[in-house]
Amino acid sequence: MIGGSLALALKANKSVDHVVGFSRSASNLKKAVALGILDSYSSNMAEVLKHCDMLVLAVPLGAMPLMLEKIAPHLPDACIVTDVASVKATVVDAAKKLLPNHYVNFVPAHPIAGTEKSGVEAGFAELFKQHKVIITPDKSTSNAAVKAVIEMWENCSARVETMSVSHHDEIFAATSHLPHLLAYSLVNCLANMEDRLDVFDYAAGGFKDISRIASSDPTMWRDICLHNKDSLAKVLKDYSYELLSLSKKIDNLESAELLAYFTRAKTRRDDLIGRC
Amino acid sequence: MIGGSLALALKANKSVDHVVGFSRSASNLKKAVALGILDSYSSNMAEVLKHCDMLVLAVPLGAMPLMLEKIAPHLPDACIVTDVASVKATVVDAAKKLLPNHYVNFVPAHPIAGTEKSGVEAGFAELFKQHKVIITPDKSTSNAAVKAVIEMWENCSARVETMSVSHHDEIFAATSHLPHLLAYSLVNCLANMEDRLDVFDYAAGGFKDISRIASSDPTMWRDICLHNKDSLAKVLKDYSYELLSLSKKIDNLESAELLAYFTRAKTRRDDLIGRC
Repeated sequence: MIGGSLALALKANKSVDHVVGFSRSASNLKKAVALGILDSYSSNMAEVLKHCDMLVLAVPLGAMPLMLEKIAPHLPDACIVTDVASVKATVVDAAKKLLPNHYVNFVPAHPIAGTEKSGVEAGFAELFKQHKVIITPDKSTSNAAVKAVIEMWENCSARVETMSVSHHDEIFAATSHLPHLLAYSLVNCLANMEDRLDVFDYAAGGFKDISRIASSDPTMWRDICLHNKDSLAKVLKDYSYELLSLSKKIDNLESAELLAYFTRAKTRRDDLIGRC
Repeated sequence: MIGGSLALALKANKSVDHVVGFSRSASNLKKAVALGILDSYSSNMAEVLKHCDMLVLAVPLGAMPLMLEKIAPHLPDACIVTDVASVKATVVDAAKKLLPNHYVNFVPAHPIAGTEKSGVEAGFAELFKQHKVIITPDKSTSNAAVKAVIEMWENCSARVETMSVSHHDEIFAATSHLPHLLAYSLVNCLANMEDRLDVFDYAAGGFKDISRIASSDPTMWRDICLHNKDSLAKVLKDYSYELLSLSKKIDNLESAELLAYFTRAKTRRDDLIGRC
């Protein structure tokens, strides 16, 4: 979905000559050509990379080391490599190890966009419009490579920001990964009660919204958990503590504290939405 | 919002002659008349109730005992009393105590509809269309009163279901109250990190959806917590256990178990949405 949307956006503004695809699934590649997302595809990595000046690794986190290994022998010297993964530390470590000679041209990136859908047919050219893309280059990264990746994303109407790898992984553990884990665990918690309570027959709009992201791709979220384990452990601990403190306020019928607690959250959230 | 929407829906299908309002806020009442929601209003309870054949208590849970006390001396014998509160046990107990002679005509009800907005100006006639309304009468409730309340809600295109008070409070602790508490505590958890991480600058669509219900009315949610404490304690315990078990899978890098966990939730949620 991310790779396809990027190709569509770049084609829509004519900032790309030719998009060639590589994937383990030939049927996906055929679909992408039929949908006008790819100009061509190949299952031969050497052929794919021969004339490539920008390679975007839009694969699940779990497939990243294998992809880096696969591309290493065929990368043209001047080819810039970037990715779209939601966790950066493990990808950067793998790139350092598996592309030692090419690491200078590797620009780690994370577009903050997506829906709960996945697959090439779920992509659309406007996905990144006004969305942020975080890049996490380090001191050794080539300025020209950074500039080219920024330009690519700006051509999709995205706004590019730079931060450190560790800051990125900590922020997104809190703002994206934690909410997904809450949504998944809420659905499973309710599913456990279902035989006794038929809970899903009475789930209203609030539940549907809060659980939307539990319809996201399980493989992607397994990989994010495995790759951002340490930051996630920290935010899960913080969140459990937060929920425990709320539980205690309820147990003790702390009326004024509960009102203040909910008012604080509402104010913060209304304020955030007002900013968007 | 709920009271105003009900009045609008009943007026839209001409199933009501005259809607008279009572509220502690005169400005809300004036607004409701200006918006065509009320035909008239009064601050004199005796006058409001004199010709009333159906009284809907659409006040926060916390105001319910006071309202029941206020209406008790003025209720015409044949007047049916119903409510719209999200928790039923405490309301039913209060009605039993405060309307002992009139309890036979009290039909507890809970329309499963609403948005994160509140106030008379947020109401609209279609709010209850195809939504469920749960009623929780008991053996002593008059059949005629139950029939009249069912008819009122069916006139708003709602689907009425009957269940016991305790079953109602347990189900909605899980499907509605728990998700709201998760949303409120998620926003506050992130707010705690803000000085260090600027988390709200990077909150994407997933966070906005999952936190939408944290923009709900704090007074209403304080009251729900205070009134449904026991059922909430139970689901909060279940949920904490669920989250802990997910945390452990992440800590131990249980790849297959994580994939199964997320797949289970996605399947369940996609299935639920497919049913709607």
